[in-house]
Amino acid sequence: MTTINRRHAMAAGAAALAAPAIATDTLVTRAQAQAPAAAAQAPGFYKYKVGDITVTAINDGFFARPVEGFIRNAELPAVQAALTAAFLPTNAIPIPFNTLVVETGGRLVMIDSGNGNTGAPTSGTWMANFRAAGFDPARVNTILISHFHGDHINGLRLRDGTAVFPNAEIQVPAPEWAFWMSDERMNQAPEGMRGGFQNSRRVFGPIANDVKRFEPGGEVAPGITSIAAYGHSPGHTCFGIASGTGKMIYMADTTNHPALFVRNPDWSAVFDQDADAARAVRRRLLDMAATEKTRVHFYHAPFPSNGYVAKDGNGYQLVPAQWTPSI
Amino acid sequence: MTTINRRHAMAAGAAALAAPAIATDTLVTRAQAQAPAAAAQAPGFYKYKVGDITVTAINDGFFARPVEGFIRNAELPAVQAALTAAFLPTNAIPIPFNTLVVETGGRLVMIDSGNGNTGAPTSGTWMANFRAAGFDPARVNTILISHFHGDHINGLRLRDGTAVFPNAEIQVPAPEWAFWMSDERMNQAPEGMRGGFQNSRRVFGPIANDVKRFEPGGEVAPGITSIAAYGHSPGHTCFGIASGTGKMIYMADTTNHPALFVRNPDWSAVFDQDADAARAVRRRLLDMAATEKTRVHFYHAPFPSNGYVAKDGNGYQLVPAQWTPSI
Repeated sequence: MTTINRRHAMAAGAAALAAPAIATDTLVTRAQAQAPAAAAQAPGFYKYKVGDITVTAINDGFFARPVEGFIRNAELPAVQAALTAAFLPTNAIPIPFNTLVVETGGRLVMIDSGNGNTGAPTSGTWMANFRAAGFDPARVNTILISHFHGDHINGLRLRDGTAVFPNAEIQVPAPEWAFWMSDERMNQAPEGMRGGFQNSRRVFGPIANDVKRFEPGGEVAPGITSIAAYGHSPGHTCFGIASGTGKMIYMADTTNHPALFVRNPDWSAVFDQDADAARAVRRRLLDMAATEKTRVHFYHAPFPSNGYVAKDGNGYQLVPAQWTPSI
Repeated sequence: MTTINRRHAMAAGAAALAAPAIATDTLVTRAQAQAPAAAAQAPGFYKYKVGDITVTAINDGFFARPVEGFIRNAELPAVQAALTAAFLPTNAIPIPFNTLVVETGGRLVMIDSGNGNTGAPTSGTWMANFRAAGFDPARVNTILISHFHGDHINGLRLRDGTAVFPNAEIQVPAPEWAFWMSDERMNQAPEGMRGGFQNSRRVFGPIANDVKRFEPGGEVAPGITSIAAYGHSPGHTCFGIASGTGKMIYMADTTNHPALFVRNPDWSAVFDQDADAARAVRRRLLDMAATEKTRVHFYHAPFPSNGYVAKDGNGYQLVPAQWTPSI
């Protein structure tokens, strides 16, 4: 199912390592010119309810991805037109990172972990935001992983090898584990993709016997169900969260930035390992979210990444949910 | 220019006094069920740059306005369809309050002041958010007022009479002052509108000799220009903020909630004192913002109320600017 060629492999490798962004975007310049503490931005967390469950979006900054070469099957002017329509820069697009923390059934559950201390200089703010939201890494019970690209798993382990969530049970999709932890796959992989395999070993190797592998489709925590969404990576998995009449879907990387890929679901980012499978999954989940009016969280949507999907022409729109001070 | 009838007058009176909302909306219920401190929402402020100027949106909560009777010239099903398209509740719409703080030319300038301690139970969070953003009310140099409806001026003076910003110069649009501070106007006004006149005296009476009245059209603070936008109230005024190539417009109440009135600029909220003048101003400023791609802040847009206006059919869309952790 997973077809790898050299160009795709390099893109996946870059994603896995979350290489520093090229500083072509003004947002990068602004991030580097740090303001004094008194003038700091509000912390990047946002809480809301799904039935009785409290979820918290935690931001881990962003990565300024040069637009050229980002999309396999669209011409640059079309991509730039989509960015202009969203009032985004057209040279490098700021791609945000947003994980989700779920308080459910007396347990503290994380979905994905952010970049840790391995990402672009404009990322790495996850832990500060997580603590500002009132959470303690030592009290995390469960961590659900959507897939093994570096921006989703590197928060589990610091560069120096330290495990960040010492008491958490880690659950990963079995097909994702089977792909990235296969020595045979690694040895067959092109040079540019090796980083993703090596990084998976760096993160999971020391705890390989303890990591719980699940087959997507069943309940993985109270009120949380895994949803097979293979294509972006071999075992890419989404999560449904339900309580009472409340319901939402953690869409993970079903789309990259919504201004491009919710709007144009047939476009393929170079990060998609199997473009055709990813496109089919994207169409299916966007259509389901729009039809059922389900609340969604995309990992790469603008913070707080809390919204709804509406049909619009041949694509969709992500309609942000209104911010509210109450929870 | 200003035509008053009883129905409009009562609506204007309600706005001026910011009467407690009818708790028909689930958001209200949530706000009342306060979460413990550790699980609090992130503070409602958001900072960004306009050239060298730093602006900070400060949220003052919201008011759940029953939808029935809110719009003069649209049928209820059409209004509810617009709310459904925006994934908002259709019984009572949560109308947010967002002021702006501008750090310009070494001065701390506020635009409007929020509800103070006179608003709905779901509002009144302004001071906590202002302080969380690193500001001190004693250090405010200048306060610019867009118009005299209570949700914009009541933050200047507590119910017990205390002046909240003891060292600030207060600047107000001269035509707004002329209308609300006229005893003749007050005595002629219908009963339901008296509150707005009385409240203006409560807030400005003790400092009447010190309040600076400006004729809209000129510079009122470094980089800040006032823009006549009469209609919503007799002296309703917007503010342009410019620095280098950066530019934005504080739209005040040129529209009420964008999901209704940016989308349908010909609809008239009952709060508009002169519906025809307000509609003409709304069309003119929305068209200008869309044509020039100017960043805008609407007082009643969802926090952080930072976005752009795009033409869409016979109306417009408010496209939120992407949240960024840097300033």
